[in-house]
Amino acid sequence: MEKVKPLIGIVMGSESDLPLMGKAAEICKEFNVPYEMRIISAHRAPNKLKEFVFNGEKKGIKVFIAGAGLAAHLPGVIASYTHRPVIGVPLTSGSLKGLDSLLSIAQMPGGIPVATVAIDGTKNAALLAIQMLALSNKQLERKLISYKKKMEKAVINKDKELMKGK
Amino acid sequence: MEKVKPLIGIVMGSESDLPLMGKAAEICKEFNVPYEMRIISAHRAPNKLKEFVFNGEKKGIKVFIAGAGLAAHLPGVIASYTHRPVIGVPLTSGSLKGLDSLLSIAQMPGGIPVATVAIDGTKNAALLAIQMLALSNKQLERKLISYKKKMEKAVINKDKELMKGK
Amino acid sequence: MEKVKPLIGIVMGSESDLPLMGKAAEICKEFNVPYEMRIISAHRAPNKLKEFVFNGEKKGIKVFIAGAGLAAHLPGVIASYTHRPVIGVPLTSGSLKGLDSLLSIAQMPGGIPVATVAIDGTKNAALLAIQMLALSNKQLERKLISYKKKMEKAVINKDKELMKGK
Amino acid sequence: MEKVKPLIGIVMGSESDLPLMGKAAEICKEFNVPYEMRIISAHRAPNKLKEFVFNGEKKGIKVFIAGAGLAAHLPGVIASYTHRPVIGVPLTSGSLKGLDSLLSIAQMPGGIPVATVAIDGTKNAALLAIQMLALSNKQLERKLISYKKKMEKAVINKDKELMKGK
Amino acid sequence: MEKVKPLIGIVMGSESDLPLMGKAAEICKEFNVPYEMRIISAHRAPNKLKEFVFNGEKKGIKVFIAGAGLAAHLPGVIASYTHRPVIGVPLTSGSLKGLDSLLSIAQMPGGIPVATVAIDGTKNAALLAIQMLALSNKQLERKLISYKKKMEKAVINKDKELMKGK
Amino acid sequence: MEKVKPLIGIVMGSESDLPLMGKAAEICKEFNVPYEMRIISAHRAPNKLKEFVFNGEKKGIKVFIAGAGLAAHLPGVIASYTHRPVIGVPLTSGSLKGLDSLLSIAQMPGGIPVATVAIDGTKNAALLAIQMLALSNKQLERKLISYKKKMEKAVINKDKELMKGK
Amino acid sequence: MEKVKPLIGIVMGSESDLPLMGKAAEICKEFNVPYEMRIISAHRAPNKLKEFVFNGEKKGIKVFIAGAGLAAHLPGVIASYTHRPVIGVPLTSGSLKGLDSLLSIAQMPGGIPVATVAIDGTKNAALLAIQMLALSNKQLERKLISYKKKMEKAVINKDKELMKGK
Amino acid sequence: MEKVKPLIGIVMGSESDLPLMGKAAEICKEFNVPYEMRIISAHRAPNKLKEFVFNGEKKGIKVFIAGAGLAAHLPGVIASYTHRPVIGVPLTSGSLKGLDSLLSIAQMPGGIPVATVAIDGTKNAALLAIQMLALSNKQLERKLISYKKKMEKAVINKDKELMKGK
Repeated sequence: MEKVKPLIGIVMGSESDLPLMGKAAEICKEFNVPYEMRIISAHRAPNKLKEFVFNGEKKGIKVFIAGAGLAAHLPGVIASYTHRPVIGVPLTSGSLKGLDSLLSIAQMPGGIPVATVAIDGTKNAALLAIQMLALSNKQLERKLISYKKKMEKAVINKDKELMKGK
Repeated sequence: MEKVKPLIGIVMGSESDLPLMGKAAEICKEFNVPYEMRIISAHRAPNKLKEFVFNGEKKGIKVFIAGAGLAAHLPGVIASYTHRPVIGVPLTSGSLKGLDSLLSIAQMPGGIPVATVAIDGTKNAALLAIQMLALSNKQLERKLISYKKKMEKAVINKDKELMKGK
Repeated sequence: MEKVKPLIGIVMGSESDLPLMGKAAEICKEFNVPYEMRIISAHRAPNKLKEFVFNGEKKGIKVFIAGAGLAAHLPGVIASYTHRPVIGVPLTSGSLKGLDSLLSIAQMPGGIPVATVAIDGTKNAALLAIQMLALSNKQLERKLISYKKKMEKAVINKDKELMKGK
Repeated sequence: MEKVKPLIGIVMGSESDLPLMGKAAEICKEFNVPYEMRIISAHRAPNKLKEFVFNGEKKGIKVFIAGAGLAAHLPGVIASYTHRPVIGVPLTSGSLKGLDSLLSIAQMPGGIPVATVAIDGTKNAALLAIQMLALSNKQLERKLISYKKKMEKAVINKDKELMKGK
Repeated sequence: MEKVKPLIGIVMGSESDLPLMGKAAEICKEFNVPYEMRIISAHRAPNKLKEFVFNGEKKGIKVFIAGAGLAAHLPGVIASYTHRPVIGVPLTSGSLKGLDSLLSIAQMPGGIPVATVAIDGTKNAALLAIQMLALSNKQLERKLISYKKKMEKAVINKDKELMKGK
Repeated sequence: MEKVKPLIGIVMGSESDLPLMGKAAEICKEFNVPYEMRIISAHRAPNKLKEFVFNGEKKGIKVFIAGAGLAAHLPGVIASYTHRPVIGVPLTSGSLKGLDSLLSIAQMPGGIPVATVAIDGTKNAALLAIQMLALSNKQLERKLISYKKKMEKAVINKDKELMKGK
Repeated sequence: MEKVKPLIGIVMGSESDLPLMGKAAEICKEFNVPYEMRIISAHRAPNKLKEFVFNGEKKGIKVFIAGAGLAAHLPGVIASYTHRPVIGVPLTSGSLKGLDSLLSIAQMPGGIPVATVAIDGTKNAALLAIQMLALSNKQLERKLISYKKKMEKAVINKDKELMKGK
Repeated sequence: MEKVKPLIGIVMGSESDLPLMGKAAEICKEFNVPYEMRIISAHRAPNKLKEFVFNGEKKGIKVFIAGAGLAAHLPGVIASYTHRPVIGVPLTSGSLKGLDSLLSIAQMPGGIPVATVAIDGTKNAALLAIQMLALSNKQLERKLISYKKKMEKAVINKDKELMKGK
């Protein structure tokens, strides 16, 4: 699926973030949305990152998802290079357990928004990206609506099981 | 401009949030994007809120911006009713100065994303909404690109003034 | 016991909260107070939740206990639908360890109180609900008084054992 | 109104808390619920406090509301003496702005619940107490329902004004 | 040693605090200072606690050490009953890891001091108590001075080992 | 009074702390306990500080009170030089409002206790020092007991005034 | 002085940081160290920033000082472009009062250090830069030593004034 | 390598910090920079520490790296004795997980800077020290530049592996 022109770019700063960021990729697969997943550190490979954002835009990436821990600059740096939506995922890492990355991602200055999701909220990051793409894609919108209904049903079923004295 | 079919719904829980949330409306005006601004509390008028979200979707609202302070449930409750992107703005209010609202908005559970911006980041909330709309609107995209350039120039000019011994 | 008309409604957003919320049910059993325990997510099944609160009120539920982690909106949303007391239990979940849920539950705006207990304080939530019911139930009040005495004795016995050089 | 046998006991540790705690008294007056308002410090007058709780119970106080700042022990100490519901209000005071009092009140150990409301949430404390009393008082319940409706209407009216271009 | 008239009273609210509070007792033994160790909860056995403080004062207890977790009221309640120094030890317990107990113990209001030590600082609590007793006990003062020197030597020896390429 | 041999040494790192630390001196005056008040920064005048502690001990200073803001090292450094009790007062200063100084003072490592009081708790610091001195001074003990009674009376009087409809 | 080849580059993201960052410039002037002060936002002018760092290195800038508030990425982005020391100054700005910027600056990942100073610690940032330059500049080293002595004297003089009963 | 005159002094307060601080030593070895690693507690061996700093300066130590947990005074105390750069490393230790040490190290008062790195950022501390030394050492500068390039390549290689469908 990654050979198709990607609509979503999923970036992380380090290989160690792969297990968490991979959940965003799984959601993309589930919705059949082409994506590209990359390891590009804002701090260790700043030129590569800039190149990736510019090429990504040209390739057709519509939404960027960037996950980072600690002083998480990755989403903000991407947002400095593009006018496309950037979703930031604070990752639990180190002893402050993601509070540092949440603040480093959410507290962006005026003019350069980053759409922040929950700490380790990689799945929601992908869903948010798909919500954005669905604004102009009826098929994707229908999938989102049915995804939402399935979630509702799943909860209601759990509730029924509990009620039956499971 | 509010008579045109709105694309962005700006909601706040209390009249006291109007000065801050009004900045989001100003950005919409600047980009000539029709919006609707409403006061609907998630806690005091829950049925009205549900009605607003469903009617809003039908009316054509593509993106919801919700600002709230304290235990800020407004964006999350809107997100529970819609599959469209919801942007949450934590507002400084009360003695914890927005840390409570930041956590109440950002830490959404899996399946129901809210795109969180900075505390009092109403301007960025509007820009983020416009970035989303611009994904399928070339004119809006061009405006965003030139907005970004203007910001860059403004900083560079300030820098020049400082260099000249201002 | 759950077949009798419930007086206390215990709600959680996800099956994973069952071990913690089950402790509230155990206290209800210990005091012989009929309860109903349900899994209804405020975010994934908002309509079901509203229905549950309205039906619950009619069925005779006097006090609602709602436990939630992260951006814990469940107690607040229930409180938006009912004038009956709602007790909120912040649950440890995710990397902020319940500080997010404590603030999301406690910092309710004026007009819509939620009685917040300690993080993971499910047992105390049930005791608080029973204290409320005991205001008009002498038998329950006597049980509470003897429960309090038993706790006192237990501590005093532990103290004696320690004094004896255990 | 304070001459009638009080149902609610409002206690604070210091005269300086009077402006905030007075809002709880105003809600009591609005609902015509007799109350007693007292200044009794848990730390400076511990014996007086114990006496007040025991006499209060006998006099007919059903619910205790205790407001305190800093290391806010007042609600917890009252709860150690009574099996009746105790509502704790963390008050903004000192440089930590109520975070200290929120934690000192909410994080009660198992067996001794305190129903914690928001920082400076004195109004909600009174509403919560009235919700408890209304469990066995139909007239009070009707007042609560109409209070809730009035709040809803007030928000809806603000919304209408805003829509009209206020 | 506990049969001799105790000079230090070590109190904890729950048996589960024994491993940590026992370290305070060990220091007392090391300095040959008679102590009494007790389990008396401020919340579950408030009358017992008052009795213990008054009897303790009469028995000759000069300094109280109280350890508690969560909303740690034990040291503050003891301080409300006595004019003797009270040392409070915040204990790690629950999901906030002692930050709640640190604030609940340290942030005492004017007039009722509690000498707070580090989270889980039971050993330092005992040393502080002994420093107080040593103000009027030359023998104890000499022991403290030699304890301090031993600590210094131990560090210097570790340093030497490291220097030698250990 | 400062000419008499001081029993309490009150130290601060900067002249700007004088208004707050002066309250500790006032309490000393009220109890007629000789004290010495000094401005000696742990960071700017480390040798002077060491000299002060050693001379202070010889002069008869029994208890050290040290107030400091930000990364508040003053009490800990004094404690490294003396076996006498050191009371640390975290002072509100800078944008973290004393949370930094509270942690810098309270979280001392094993072996070197500092008796920490509340943020800006200069009055309590002096009372704690006097409690320590009173362990071997009957007259001072009597004064403390009557001070405690006066505080109790003051609260009870405030309560009476409030009851009378003030 | 700014015409001479600068050794220190002082950068801020916004004109509003000028009053605080200007204090760093004053220290440079006091030590007669040539510096360049610039306004270049990491988020609004990312290409300009990269250019500045590369040109700065060539021009002879040895140490970079970067001040930023909120999600303060400026120092980290500079550090991604240079192997020269970067000093980051978290600035108080917005409702979290610099805690966000402190964490965004200090919590850098392995490989890309930023030397973080206190919130609003612009003066110390300049002193630290000068300490670095003084490692290979005897004259500067002598100035630092005498600066340190002057600070010591100033404190000792304040102490003397206080002792004299000022 | 430790026999050569050391340029970097690595100090820790306790043997238990050796595994973390050892990483700083490894970086020094990698860059072939002579260092001295010592265990000297600011609190337990204050005179030894002063002696070490003065002797260290004479021996040729140019930069001090000090790691400490809890109320981490070590870097600040070293900085009080020297005009050479001091790098402070907050170490995770105790229940606050390094937030206490971060604040105790970073929030230094004006005049006495400490270059703070991330919690447990021992590797970055060494790199920062080497950056400082490289200001007047071309060979070291070249090593730093190639180190930076190697890091960049490592990330780019990881990215390539991921792209290849690893």
